[in-house]
Amino acid sequence: MTDAPNATTDELPWLRLRVMLGDGAYMGPGRADLLQGIAETGSIAAAGRRMSMSYRRAWLLVEALHQDFGSPMVTTAIGGRRGGGAQLTPLGEAVLQGYRQIVARCQTAAETEMQALAALRQNAV
Amino acid sequence: MTDAPNATTDELPWLRLRVMLGDGAYMGPGRADLLQGIAETGSIAAAGRRMSMSYRRAWLLVEALHQDFGSPMVTTAIGGRRGGGAQLTPLGEAVLQGYRQIVARCQTAAETEMQALAALRQNAV
Repeated sequence: MTDAPNATTDELPWLRLRVMLGDGAYMGPGRADLLQGIAETGSIAAAGRRMSMSYRRAWLLVEALHQDFGSPMVTTAIGGRRGGGAQLTPLGEAVLQGYRQIVARCQTAAETEMQALAALRQNAV
Repeated sequence: MTDAPNATTDELPWLRLRVMLGDGAYMGPGRADLLQGIAETGSIAAAGRRMSMSYRRAWLLVEALHQDFGSPMVTTAIGGRRGGGAQLTPLGEAVLQGYRQIVARCQTAAETEMQALAALRQNAV
């Protein structure tokens, strides 16, 4: 998992945020990046590779999401024109969008306080 | 590290939130709980025990905070009336308070979106 918020910004400080849903269920940054990777690449393996993650680990994360939300987030097709492609279910899309909204809300709401926290660093560049 | 937000509420959903400050420096829930434990118990060892953490691990976390913020967050006194007691420096207090403010801001700002995410669970009790 990368330490950078994304490839196009280096805005600081930023949040890594896990939404705890009870019973150990959650949605977090790694799961979000994986779902987004699957949506963009059409492949669990390719999405995992983008995050330096084995296929097995990526698949287990998808399965954990399924368990946590009680319904699949990713469908895989065998054969057909896209041969074995993976894509998000409507639930997968909704969870990803919902999580991104939460992150955006928090980043905006706590911007001033985060800058204040960063300003407490005595060794900042 | 406990999975519960705190001992007195079981409000759901809730956030586990790490503020990334660049260069790998951050402030997060485990560090906050440890600082709070030190403030409350006057002891790194006791604060660690409360979190089922070895003295060594607790001490390393305190040291990592020191590194990340460039100045000590905890002072330890040898001898004296409190014999070897630990307490937060003004910086330690400020970092802890600042982090708690960020969490509170985020929890409030994203409450609606977090409820919507939780409502997507098909297996919620």
